[in-house]
Amino acid sequence: MSNKDISNIKTIDGGICAVKGVKAAGVRNGKYGIALILSENSYVAGAFTSNKITAAPVDHTKNTIKDGKISLIVANSGNANCFTGEEGIEDCKNIVDFSSELLKIQSGKIATASTGVVGRKMPMEIISPLIKKASKKLENSIKASQDAAKAIMTTDTIHKECAVQVTLQNNNIVNIGGICKGTGMIAPNMATMLCFIATDGKIKSENLKDSLKIAIEDSFNMLSVDGDESTNDTVLFFANSKSKNEIIDSNGEIDENFQEGLNFLCKKLAKQMAYDGEGATKFIEVNVIGAKTKNEGRLVAKSVVNSSLVKTAIFGEDPNWGRIVVAIGYSKAEIDPENISISLSANDDIVDLVKDGEILAYDGTFNLKKAENIMKNREIKIIIDLKQGFYSATTYGCDLSYDYVKINAEYTT
Amino acid sequence: MSNKDISNIKTIDGGICAVKGVKAAGVRNGKYGIALILSENSYVAGAFTSNKITAAPVDHTKNTIKDGKISLIVANSGNANCFTGEEGIEDCKNIVDFSSELLKIQSGKIATASTGVVGRKMPMEIISPLIKKASKKLENSIKASQDAAKAIMTTDTIHKECAVQVTLQNNNIVNIGGICKGTGMIAPNMATMLCFIATDGKIKSENLKDSLKIAIEDSFNMLSVDGDESTNDTVLFFANSKSKNEIIDSNGEIDENFQEGLNFLCKKLAKQMAYDGEGATKFIEVNVIGAKTKNEGRLVAKSVVNSSLVKTAIFGEDPNWGRIVVAIGYSKAEIDPENISISLSANDDIVDLVKDGEILAYDGTFNLKKAENIMKNREIKIIIDLKQGFYSATTYGCDLSYDYVKINAEYTT
Repeated sequence: MSNKDISNIKTIDGGICAVKGVKAAGVRNGKYGIALILSENSYVAGAFTSNKITAAPVDHTKNTIKDGKISLIVANSGNANCFTGEEGIEDCKNIVDFSSELLKIQSGKIATASTGVVGRKMPMEIISPLIKKASKKLENSIKASQDAAKAIMTTDTIHKECAVQVTLQNNNIVNIGGICKGTGMIAPNMATMLCFIATDGKIKSENLKDSLKIAIEDSFNMLSVDGDESTNDTVLFFANSKSKNEIIDSNGEIDENFQEGLNFLCKKLAKQMAYDGEGATKFIEVNVIGAKTKNEGRLVAKSVVNSSLVKTAIFGEDPNWGRIVVAIGYSKAEIDPENISISLSANDDIVDLVKDGEILAYDGTFNLKKAENIMKNREIKIIIDLKQGFYSATTYGCDLSYDYVKINAEYTT
Repeated sequence: MSNKDISNIKTIDGGICAVKGVKAAGVRNGKYGIALILSENSYVAGAFTSNKITAAPVDHTKNTIKDGKISLIVANSGNANCFTGEEGIEDCKNIVDFSSELLKIQSGKIATASTGVVGRKMPMEIISPLIKKASKKLENSIKASQDAAKAIMTTDTIHKECAVQVTLQNNNIVNIGGICKGTGMIAPNMATMLCFIATDGKIKSENLKDSLKIAIEDSFNMLSVDGDESTNDTVLFFANSKSKNEIIDSNGEIDENFQEGLNFLCKKLAKQMAYDGEGATKFIEVNVIGAKTKNEGRLVAKSVVNSSLVKTAIFGEDPNWGRIVVAIGYSKAEIDPENISISLSANDDIVDLVKDGEILAYDGTFNLKKAENIMKNREIKIIIDLKQGFYSATTYGCDLSYDYVKINAEYTT
C-alpha cells in the first residue's frame, strides 16, 4: 500500500484517537475482547449487513442510531451474539445498561457491536468484567486507539487503524480516524467487519450518512475474502464537532476534500482487511477499466477477485490468464471476448497476458519469466480492459491458501 | 450412494455401452486423452455453459446439433480449446475433418467437446494420433465405456459412468447409459463437466431436449464444487432408436418411467462428481424443505453448499450450525429466523441442531457427541426446514480441504 499523501489529505498517527474529543480503550481476556469508544453527543450514521439473519447488536444499534446521536460504542469480540433469540436481545440490553451505569451515559446513546462465533450465547460473566476494566482505561491516546483495535480482533493477525488530517476547501482543518477488524466472511457487500470512524468536523447525521454511503461503495463493498457475508457487519461513522469546522459548504454540499479524505481512509482500511484475509499470502487488487457501466465494471472485478480458481492460482504464483478469462466470462457483465486485455502488475512492473482477445503467450515477445517474477510479489494487481466503455471499478482481495482452510477447519467447537 | 433400485428402473453395468448400438473408445497420452462415442444417425439434444466466454468446441457443437442428428462425439481432455481465437476454431474443424475421414462419417454429424486448461492452443500433434489410435478401438463393451470415461478425466481421480434399464409404462424396455467427468470449476448451473448420455429408445430431438432439461434441473444444475463456472460445460443426450421402443406415449407425452430413469441417472452422475470434487474428503447433500417456492429452496440449498465457511467446517468435522445459519441468511430467499430448523444426518443417524429458531446446544437433551460422530462420516446430509411453504430442493457438493488448494495452486504452467 502506498503511503503517499493526496494533496489536502495527510495521513497521521493516532487511529480513532487522532480525532479531537474521542477516547478509546480496549482490553482482552483470551478470545474475548471489549473496545469502548467514547465521543460525547456525536451525530452518527451507520451501515449494516444485508444478511437476512442479523445479530442482536445489529438490530439494537440500528434502533439506537435512529435518533441520530450517540456517545459511546461498546464492541466485543469472541461472540457474535447472533441467532441467540430473546436471550441475545436481553444480553445486548444488559451490556448497554451496565455500560450506562458505569460511565453515566444515557442508554439511548450507547451503540453496540459484536463479532465472533455465531449461534452461541454471550458469556456475560466474562463480558461484564471486561467492560468494567475497559471503562477505567478510556483516554485519548495513540495507545488507546491501538488497544481498542486489538480488542475487536478475532482471526485478525494485525490490528487495523488509520487517521487523516483533511484541509477543507476553506483551509480549515478536520481530522478523521478509524479502527476496524475483519479477515474472513468478508464478501462484497461489506464484510464480517466492524468499523468505527470518527471525525471532529461539524456535520449532521443526514450528511454523515450520504458521505459514508459514497465512501463505502468503493471500499468495503469492493472487498472480498471468501464470499461469505456476515450477520454482524457494522460500520458506524460519527461526528462530534470538536474542531468547530463546518463540513457542509455554503451550497449545502459536503466539502469535496472531506469526502476525498473519508474515501481515502475507507480504502486504506479495506486494503488492511484484504491484506490480513484469513490465511492470505498475497494481496490482490483487480482493476477493471473500459466497462460499459460502473456496475458492469464491478461485476467483473468482483467475479475475478472472488474466483477460488484465480485465488489458488495466485497462491501458487501462477500467472494463469485462463482462469481470469473464465471468471470474466461468468460475471454476467456484457463483454466481448475479442476485445479483452489482461495485464499483471506489481512493484511498478507490468506484463501483458492478453491483448485484444489474443493470448500473448504465443507471441515471441511474451516474457513468461517476467510474469512469474511479478507473481512472486506480496501485492499483485490484475488489470482488465473490457473496451466496452469508460467506466472502471476496483476490488480488493487475497489468495486462497492452505491456511485459510486450516483456520476455518479448526476455528470453533 | 444408495444402489437401491427404484421400481421400473434397474441399474446395470456397461456405462454408455449398456445402450444398444453405441460403441466407445478411449486412449490417453499423459495429460491428454481422446474419447470417441459412435452411435450412427442419432437424434440429439444438448445443454451448454452459460459462461459468456465459450470454448471453440462448444460453439462448434451447438451449431452441429442444430440439424438434430449426430453419429459421433470426439472429446478430448488436457486442453479446453478456449480463448484460442481463430486458430481454436480451426483446430476444432481439423479434429472433425480428421475424424470424418478416418471413420467415414459426415463432418456435419460429428460433435466435439474439450476439457482442460483454458487459454492454451490445442497440441494437434498429440491430439490427432490419439484420435487415430482410438478409432481402431471402437467397440460396444463394458471396457470401452470405461476407457472413454477415463480418457476425459482431468483432475478426476475416478472415472464416472452409470447405466439403467427402464421398463416403460407399456412394459417395453429401453436402456439409458452415460459417462461424465468433472471435479472442479463446478458451479450451479452446470459444471466443468462433460457428460454424454445415450438411449436406445425411439425419441426425437425436440422431446429429447425437454426430457434432458427436466433431468438437468435437479442434478447437474444443483451441483457445486467451487462456485466457478466453466467455459466448456457440455451435456449431449442422444437417441439411436435401436431398441425400436417408442418413448413418447399415445398422448404425445414423454413416458414417465423414462423420465424418472433419466432423472435417476443424472443424479447418480452428479453425485459421482461431487464425491470426486477436487480435494474432497466429504460428500455433502443439502436438503431444503418447507420453502415458499422451488426457487427459494434452491437459493438456500445452493448458498449453504457453496459457503466456504460451511465447507471448511465440514472438512474440520465441526457441526457448526452458526455458519449454516449465516449462509441461509445471505441466500436472498425469504426466511424467518425464528422458524428455521437444521439437522445433520449420516448413515441413518440424525441429530437436530436448531429447532424452530432455537439452538439446541443449550438444551440439556442435545447430544454433541452424536453430532460429532455424524460429522466423521464420508457422506453428510444437512437438512434445513424453512417452514415457509411446501417446496423442497437438494444440492450436492463437497468440503473444502487442503488438497483443493494444493490441486489448484499446482495445476498448469
